[in-house]
Amino acid sequence: MSKVNENFLNLKDDYLFSKITQKTNEFKNNNPDKKVISLGIGDVSLPLSPAVIDAMHKAVDEMAHQETFKSYGIVQGYQFLIDKIKKVEYEKRNIFLDNDEIFIAAGSKGDLAGIIELLSINNIVGIMDPIYPAYVDTNIMMGRNDIKYFKATEENNFVPDIPNEHIDIIYLCSPNNPTGTVFNKTQLQDWVNYAKEHKSIILYDSAYEIFIQDNNIPHSIYEIDGAKEVAIEFRSFSKLAGFTGVRCSFTVVPKELKAYTKDNKPIDLNSLWRRRQSAKFGATSYITQRAAEAVYSDKGQEQVRKNIKYYQDNSNYIKQELKKIGMTIFGGTNSPYIWLKIPNNMSSWDFFDLLLNKTAVIGTPGIGFGNCGEGYFRLTAFSSKEDTKEAVSRIVDLFRKDL
Amino acid sequence: MSKVNENFLNLKDDYLFSKITQKTNEFKNNNPDKKVISLGIGDVSLPLSPAVIDAMHKAVDEMAHQETFKSYGIVQGYQFLIDKIKKVEYEKRNIFLDNDEIFIAAGSKGDLAGIIELLSINNIVGIMDPIYPAYVDTNIMMGRNDIKYFKATEENNFVPDIPNEHIDIIYLCSPNNPTGTVFNKTQLQDWVNYAKEHKSIILYDSAYEIFIQDNNIPHSIYEIDGAKEVAIEFRSFSKLAGFTGVRCSFTVVPKELKAYTKDNKPIDLNSLWRRRQSAKFGATSYITQRAAEAVYSDKGQEQVRKNIKYYQDNSNYIKQELKKIGMTIFGGTNSPYIWLKIPNNMSSWDFFDLLLNKTAVIGTPGIGFGNCGEGYFRLTAFSSKEDTKEAVSRIVDLFRKDL
Repeated sequence: MSKVNENFLNLKDDYLFSKITQKTNEFKNNNPDKKVISLGIGDVSLPLSPAVIDAMHKAVDEMAHQETFKSYGIVQGYQFLIDKIKKVEYEKRNIFLDNDEIFIAAGSKGDLAGIIELLSINNIVGIMDPIYPAYVDTNIMMGRNDIKYFKATEENNFVPDIPNEHIDIIYLCSPNNPTGTVFNKTQLQDWVNYAKEHKSIILYDSAYEIFIQDNNIPHSIYEIDGAKEVAIEFRSFSKLAGFTGVRCSFTVVPKELKAYTKDNKPIDLNSLWRRRQSAKFGATSYITQRAAEAVYSDKGQEQVRKNIKYYQDNSNYIKQELKKIGMTIFGGTNSPYIWLKIPNNMSSWDFFDLLLNKTAVIGTPGIGFGNCGEGYFRLTAFSSKEDTKEAVSRIVDLFRKDL
Repeated sequence: MSKVNENFLNLKDDYLFSKITQKTNEFKNNNPDKKVISLGIGDVSLPLSPAVIDAMHKAVDEMAHQETFKSYGIVQGYQFLIDKIKKVEYEKRNIFLDNDEIFIAAGSKGDLAGIIELLSINNIVGIMDPIYPAYVDTNIMMGRNDIKYFKATEENNFVPDIPNEHIDIIYLCSPNNPTGTVFNKTQLQDWVNYAKEHKSIILYDSAYEIFIQDNNIPHSIYEIDGAKEVAIEFRSFSKLAGFTGVRCSFTVVPKELKAYTKDNKPIDLNSLWRRRQSAKFGATSYITQRAAEAVYSDKGQEQVRKNIKYYQDNSNYIKQELKKIGMTIFGGTNSPYIWLKIPNNMSSWDFFDLLLNKTAVIGTPGIGFGNCGEGYFRLTAFSSKEDTKEAVSRIVDLFRKDL
């Protein structure tokens, strides 16, 4: 009799976004005349840049002719893309990586889920709270139920303190989803030092790196001394270049990084990851990798930065207008996410209902990202400029009277 | 201290293809004047069909404009593609599937590796021998070391007999890689009956389905009575339409299919797989799904079948000419793979060396696919017509004297 992996039965219902959709649809049915605006989307809205489109057309044409056709790709990824990533993302920040330390993939989600397969079920896992829910779920699926949480609260400005217990696998996400806050160099150095001391591994999710504006905020964890010995970095083209529907990412697994056998023998995770990818991952589409390469052309860089600026203008506007009416706001500077402290001690679902019913604006209740998210609300900068202004103006009208 | 998943240390060296490459490169260095021809490639060589290319250009253009831009996709896959698969692959064979029983992915490799995460480590796994090595490796990575093998030998015409022991998870691959043999309806019905009796699950890898020519060979396991209760089917556009560098596949997880808790409670694997994909898989590229849809247009069908015919002509030629000189050949009719019985009791690596050194032709030693592969050699139909003819003529010249 085939036996199920009972760890799956320990997953909590994945109801956050389905509950939002259900409530929104109900509201729309009851209020067909009202224009609902969503500031809840964690997804880009601007189309792909012309440099990327040109590169994709060119790659599609190559696939049409025998001489230029590309069949099975290399698991590591094409060298043309690895070269660009090394140069633009790392060498200009004085980080020097070997070609085989960068792995191209079809999205960080798969790599973040896959990397933990390399590590024993007996590790102690620590995850920020609030956080993107998939970190927790993928650990529960493997049977890691005793997850520790690093609390991100107003007291620590949503940058968790170094734990005073032992943690083997540390998930850090900066710029953070959902709080929009970032680790500065000192804070990140403290975490790297902790990991070195405890021989822990940091899984550093930096999908929103392109939104970093402040000079003292590291763009890569490898700007921090000693990080190559303890950290794996996950980066994505999803937000960088609007690739959420295209699917491209890269993961850096430095050769210095080790995990240990029961007999304390160090094992190189770089070769383990390559072996895992060879057995489980069919490489990334050639056309997609050419699209990603184009992001690093001069035109590509100019065009993607223009799009990021558009989103940044939205987040600046949201922050500024809501602060004017006395609201307490976190994030939104080095991130497309605005983390709003809900006024009047309302719960985050009550605030969701209030906003929907009174203003027809959708956001995301903080509790959906973990217990420390209760009392907070996530707004995003990914809507159109016009919709963002309209939504903010409705919220301001509602709360100006109130606050 | 971070602890490694020590199961990875039980993997055997993945040396088959690297050893082939190394030996080939050595030969080329020592014989710069000789033209090496490979009949060892398990990968397409013909470029994408015009209908597919047109669809991709159109989809790329959609990604350039706000009104038609596609961001995060649906984990299940786009309905436009699911509709076509239902109709062309299943309904015309009287198989009726619900929309949410078909999952679009970026290659069967990832799904074949992922699906076993849904099943307890305590299941007994049975795998055909010889076989594509990733089935074994992905189980070893999870700690399933006690794998049973279904022997495919000349005695059973490379279609393994029903086991006389209990197996929970059964891997079947038809048309088979590497032997090129297929299960007929009676044989497959026996396996389905076994699985129903034992409440086992069959993982049915049918990546080479498009090569099936004989009328009595099922194109889908769901042509077999009761299969929906016990089988998951893995299908791919890689060989069907030359998508090895594009990456698209689909997996059918019927709602009737159950695995069981310790208390014998049946658990629906369809919802578990959706939950797994939501946490670990970032959906398939929109452009790729439009490309796959185009395979099912009238033009697309005509064009991909023309390419398959080209490969079939190659395999027919290889089979026919090698049989003429008295060689014993399996497969190659419903498959691009020709499974050659090595003459004169040579080992498969010795035969590889002989062929390379005497004819400059590359093939794949059967032992690379498992112990039952010893004494056999895989040739493939994926080279050009000209190269295939030239390679066969060299082999014939060598062995005409010998046999």
